[in-house]
Amino acid sequence: MLAKKYAAVAGQSSVIREIFEYGKQRAKVVGPENVFDFSIGNPSVPAPEQVNETAIRLLNEEDPCKVHGYPSAVGYDDTREAIAENLNRRYGMHYHKNNIFMTIGAASAISLCFRVLADANVEDEIMVCAPYFPEYKCFIEGAGVKVTEIAADIADFQIDFEELESKLNEHTRAIIINSPNNPTGVVYSEETLKRLASILEEASNRYKRPIYIISDEPYREIVFGGKTVPYVPHFYKNTLVCYSYSKSLSLPGERVGYIAFTDEIADADNMLGTIGAVAREMGYVGVPSLFQMVVRDCVNELSDISVYETNKNIIYKALTEMGYQCVEPGGTFYIFPRCLEEDAQSFCNRAQKYDLLLVPSDSFSCKGHFRMSYCVPTERVERALPLFEKLIQEYRK
Amino acid sequence: MLAKKYAAVAGQSSVIREIFEYGKQRAKVVGPENVFDFSIGNPSVPAPEQVNETAIRLLNEEDPCKVHGYPSAVGYDDTREAIAENLNRRYGMHYHKNNIFMTIGAASAISLCFRVLADANVEDEIMVCAPYFPEYKCFIEGAGVKVTEIAADIADFQIDFEELESKLNEHTRAIIINSPNNPTGVVYSEETLKRLASILEEASNRYKRPIYIISDEPYREIVFGGKTVPYVPHFYKNTLVCYSYSKSLSLPGERVGYIAFTDEIADADNMLGTIGAVAREMGYVGVPSLFQMVVRDCVNELSDISVYETNKNIIYKALTEMGYQCVEPGGTFYIFPRCLEEDAQSFCNRAQKYDLLLVPSDSFSCKGHFRMSYCVPTERVERALPLFEKLIQEYRK
Repeated sequence: MLAKKYAAVAGQSSVIREIFEYGKQRAKVVGPENVFDFSIGNPSVPAPEQVNETAIRLLNEEDPCKVHGYPSAVGYDDTREAIAENLNRRYGMHYHKNNIFMTIGAASAISLCFRVLADANVEDEIMVCAPYFPEYKCFIEGAGVKVTEIAADIADFQIDFEELESKLNEHTRAIIINSPNNPTGVVYSEETLKRLASILEEASNRYKRPIYIISDEPYREIVFGGKTVPYVPHFYKNTLVCYSYSKSLSLPGERVGYIAFTDEIADADNMLGTIGAVAREMGYVGVPSLFQMVVRDCVNELSDISVYETNKNIIYKALTEMGYQCVEPGGTFYIFPRCLEEDAQSFCNRAQKYDLLLVPSDSFSCKGHFRMSYCVPTERVERALPLFEKLIQEYRK
Repeated sequence: MLAKKYAAVAGQSSVIREIFEYGKQRAKVVGPENVFDFSIGNPSVPAPEQVNETAIRLLNEEDPCKVHGYPSAVGYDDTREAIAENLNRRYGMHYHKNNIFMTIGAASAISLCFRVLADANVEDEIMVCAPYFPEYKCFIEGAGVKVTEIAADIADFQIDFEELESKLNEHTRAIIINSPNNPTGVVYSEETLKRLASILEEASNRYKRPIYIISDEPYREIVFGGKTVPYVPHFYKNTLVCYSYSKSLSLPGERVGYIAFTDEIADADNMLGTIGAVAREMGYVGVPSLFQMVVRDCVNELSDISVYETNKNIIYKALTEMGYQCVEPGGTFYIFPRCLEEDAQSFCNRAQKYDLLLVPSDSFSCKGHFRMSYCVPTERVERALPLFEKLIQEYRK
């Protein structure tokens, strides 16, 4: 006799979690070194040394009532100022503290944005571009809002703009984008962002209300070839940037992130307060205090994320040479090759026989691909390659 | 053009927060030592030394990828086992890890419970006993559920059972209780809990579905006179206990709490999974990792909370001697005396002229009282007493 909405899905975890749990069990049988678990996106590089040094200094030197005390709902002023300065320096922005709302990781940031921008149980819609992180759907539908999917452009995993334009309508409130992208690893080009901005501006004028971009970018710093990921607010002013220190500081468990917006955004006067109203209702009292201070003091640090590029280079070269079809990732620690048969689940089951744990693409609303997370030691990647070779040979028989 | 539901209340913070912010501004004018801010419930005693020692040990000795890694959605197994053992020892319970769901403080615990037990946008109701923490209403209504208020029994701030029985109906899904209570400081007696249990059992039978108790108990350990707060599951099996380490370990900013339930609860098989389904939808990915481990290792520690009892004794004695009417608190760091006029806001405004910052009772859905939080240094309490004397003299003129 629990709430029908939730009891119906009780105990359902994501497919990714299920594979991850299988991997842990399998490791007990064959040894952890023989399970090639490419399922989960858990950073494999430690936080920068400054992170733990800072945490220890704060614990040793500061008043514990302050270090562990309630932060205000929007976050500490000095943490928000430090983040604003960091973004201003890197991207030539003019953020100030009241452009930043601290959140319990990126998941809470995007959950809040969906509720801020769309009303429940009316006809409001939020667009997502396939393939996409499956929790988006869970969060949007949880907010009582309709999910409108833009089918994947599997040639390059940029955006299929014809499809997007055909689905834009007067109920569209926002589109969530994620670049560098989970699961494809692709970085949206400047051309993609320009065209997206132009289409959304035109549609906003047509429907006489702003259509927002929610830019979910926890992988912003994990970008390959010495490039920089284009900063979305440079292209479109009605952007809410959602960020997490999960990857750049390797702190996924500490749950520190933010939402950022400029003074030029539509509804600027009301934005911080409306985000706060949603956070209050959802019981998000505030962001963990010690690690908010750590982020303040370590905002310019970066984990040594070079292993991800090393792994990407090895995997992309080897898989394409073997005959797998993949779009080359520009960042993240994911790659999203085509399966060797239409049914991704069936393909991943066959891979599993070699203890290669891959995630079928269906969870990401895209058929016929698999996601491989290479946030693992390079040695593990190298030992997995012969198994990928055996797998493709099996299909050639 | 933001979501109507939230834009309408954008920037509204709780009355308590507003008074607290006023106090900070006022301190700049008259000096912080001259502002008697009894508005906010922020623990004033430091965490036990073991807390910071444990955090530093974990930071120094453990693999940072583990310490700062994603915990599973329900929480770490060993943290949940440690909490289960602690409760089993203290209350003779038989909890195991799967009776415990870790939450981001008590606010998220109770937010989750409301959604687990009641469906949105039907006629489901959750009962609250006035006076009550104002966020309850915000969380329940946010979940799309109706709030049914039981008016305060101002004689002793136990429960007005006639009122409760008159409001129980086939739509009642749960009642939230909070003992030791914010704002009154009162501890529910065994008699209160027995009678509550008996009424709810009868109503559950009558309506052929369980009516749950949500027991919100972050103040469980702050109890005076060497007593123990009766453990609600001893009286009523369909109880969800919501807890936070905010007060017992003085860690309000670190956001670690839990929901606990026994194997005997109705819907036991589905409970953990349904809580998880709600948490997933709300973007509650997991509980901060380092402090989950700290709680595991410090679960048997307790902050030195004796100052709260010292303060209570001084305040209760002084105020009653002056002529204020108050129910003596059995715990917490709150007292809830009657105002000296009917209009609590007007009374608190007059108190504010003496730089006595008190919270009018209207926020707690109860008229004619004020809440005083005495989680402040005893010296501050003592210096405030002459101001309370001046205030009562003003009313006697």
